Amino acid sequence: MNGKPLVSIVSAGLSKFGKLEGLYAREIFALAAKEAYDRCPKLNPKKDIKALFVGQMGESYEHQGHTGATMADWAGLLHVPATRTEAACASSGAALRAGIYAVLSGLCDTVMVGGVEKMTHRSTAEVTEYLAMASDYPFEQWNGITFPGLFALMATAHMNAYGTTEKDLSMVAVKNHYHGSMNPKAQIQKEITLEQALSSRVVAWPLKLYDCSLITDGASCIIITKPELARKYTDTPVHIIGSGQASDTIGLYERESFTSLKAAKIAAKQAYEMAAVKPEDVDLAEVHDCFTIAEIIAYEDLGFCKPGGGGKLVESGETRLGGRLPVNTSGGLKSKGHPVGATGTAQAYEMYLQLTGQADKRQVRDAEVGLTHNLGGSGATAAVHVYRRA
Amino acid sequence: MNGKPLVSIVSAGLSKFGKLEGLYAREIFALAAKEAYDRCPKLNPKKDIKALFVGQMGESYEHQGHTGATMADWAGLLHVPATRTEAACASSGAALRAGIYAVLSGLCDTVMVGGVEKMTHRSTAEVTEYLAMASDYPFEQWNGITFPGLFALMATAHMNAYGTTEKDLSMVAVKNHYHGSMNPKAQIQKEITLEQALSSRVVAWPLKLYDCSLITDGASCIIITKPELARKYTDTPVHIIGSGQASDTIGLYERESFTSLKAAKIAAKQAYEMAAVKPEDVDLAEVHDCFTIAEIIAYEDLGFCKPGGGGKLVESGETRLGGRLPVNTSGGLKSKGHPVGATGTAQAYEMYLQLTGQADKRQVRDAEVGLTHNLGGSGATAAVHVYRRA
Repeated sequence: MNGKPLVSIVSAGLSKFGKLEGLYAREIFALAAKEAYDRCPKLNPKKDIKALFVGQMGESYEHQGHTGATMADWAGLLHVPATRTEAACASSGAALRAGIYAVLSGLCDTVMVGGVEKMTHRSTAEVTEYLAMASDYPFEQWNGITFPGLFALMATAHMNAYGTTEKDLSMVAVKNHYHGSMNPKAQIQKEITLEQALSSRVVAWPLKLYDCSLITDGASCIIITKPELARKYTDTPVHIIGSGQASDTIGLYERESFTSLKAAKIAAKQAYEMAAVKPEDVDLAEVHDCFTIAEIIAYEDLGFCKPGGGGKLVESGETRLGGRLPVNTSGGLKSKGHPVGATGTAQAYEMYLQLTGQADKRQVRDAEVGLTHNLGGSGATAAVHVYRRA
Repeated sequence: MNGKPLVSIVSAGLSKFGKLEGLYAREIFALAAKEAYDRCPKLNPKKDIKALFVGQMGESYEHQGHTGATMADWAGLLHVPATRTEAACASSGAALRAGIYAVLSGLCDTVMVGGVEKMTHRSTAEVTEYLAMASDYPFEQWNGITFPGLFALMATAHMNAYGTTEKDLSMVAVKNHYHGSMNPKAQIQKEITLEQALSSRVVAWPLKLYDCSLITDGASCIIITKPELARKYTDTPVHIIGSGQASDTIGLYERESFTSLKAAKIAAKQAYEMAAVKPEDVDLAEVHDCFTIAEIIAYEDLGFCKPGGGGKLVESGETRLGGRLPVNTSGGLKSKGHPVGATGTAQAYEMYLQLTGQADKRQVRDAEVGLTHNLGGSGATAAVHVYRRA
């Protein structure tokens, strides 16, 4: 565990994120797979890809489970071993971890990992209900709390403990919409002002409309292989050098703290140690901004600042493109969108673009080391991965 | 790939199968985990188990997803990386495969894999609807076909191609209920007669009530480790020497054949080759008898007889306890029950009992090599594993 590549990313694909009317999830996943194949003409998918792990959070949206086999078929990988992973909004972060195991196992040289969700054809009430299945049924859902409420509890606790303000939260939204305005695949490609964010309607105080991520259709995938095979497929691989995953109680009410996520801290520690990287070595990160407070807590859990320093960090501009450590250059869940099962590998997709110099207007200069941070539910799952330019 | 152990099973647990009123899935999984821990006092679960993969087919039953983290907590494994795998009724067969990758990866020495489903609190109509999510929505579910209908199509095709009879189908049920009568954890522990089976009411011709598996609550788990560590935990490990998994089109209508499942044949070929074992070397098997026709087709896909020979094989008595190759000594899905997500590792549990001489009245004498065959949906997923007594 010394920073050696675990696996290498040789290609990546992402569908447009947004309202993709008239497409089934399988068709959206096929779009992501096609981009990955088109980027990597030396790869023969049917011959080279030996397994598929695909994250999907909910079968209720399309009345469709058995997602692994379905996506394998629609990605041109008929007969490959194909398994859906589910860990709420970290479903494809967990797929990535499972895929890393598969490559390291020696049983599969090259593996596709990805994720997909089709959400926008459902009403907001239905989506809210389906998402709530990632929280604790008997003690949370049953009592009527949904995810905006759970993250509002974290936000008020953070405000109480550290003096974090509504403005700090809004600054996350302003930054991520700025980044998203430069991402042609983002669901919302326009900047917002601090005033707009602060005056948007309250969803669950202190969280307002612009503090919440989006309901989105989308799919993402990356193709990973053994590091020694990477150059067979591409001249510009990206190495994954650290991987951490951890769990916590599904119910927020059972946690020691509301201002930090223990699973994220454990996963980050594992990933940093494996990568032989420290927080200060990270050049850019994609973090799980399902709500703005989650990005602030992520800064702290990942060691980008001290506990309680997240609000000040976003206010400083250091996490904005051009700053010391740009976070969510893709626009994040907030502006790029949050097709829940697809989010984990969509973060990896952005890291692939950035570390191969393909991020266009939102390119971070001279980036060497990147990090992704993907949460499930209110933090009962966390997956953290560290990437290095080859 | 020469028959060397991939991983070793050092313990296993199974809840009672049946109608477990008043228990949540998490509580049922805890019962399975407790049995596994009690069997293996040298193992310190919290310290030794480094990951959990848990199969669960549907979050609709309990309105509860995020199953990996939840089951980790209730199994006393808080903070372990925990992921739900879903591949319809092969969800825990896929969990086993994912767990094997994890152990072989070198990142996790010892892993728990298992599965769980809580079904009986729902109406039969609800269960039928939830199960149908494992078939193709736009072309199967939407047109009203459910799983009994899909397997009835396979049965009529098999009858047409090979002269398989309703009696052959019923003989599978009679055998498996005989086996189940000796399994204190089976949902139905009583024998049935051929006449009872043949005269039971038609569900989807030629499948009658006794041709269909059960709606069941239950959980299962096994603990796997590196072969070189197995003796640290137990004097009687069971080695897994072959693993195969494959996928197929989710829709039956897209397949070349209705009388054989290509995914099962591919998975079996992989597992046999890895294990350096031939079908005739197998001493006992647990196969996926979701419907009686599925067991007959499994005989053929696994090479226990020639295509079309399945009916005659069950009639010969060779697959009954005492015969040459006992199949489904646990009672199978037919009599032990079919808590869908739990079935794959429940098969592995039976194999563990049999190959360590703990199967009591249903013990197969001098068994050395066993096989499990776990299907998802109408065969879009298949997982096959080969086991050897240590």
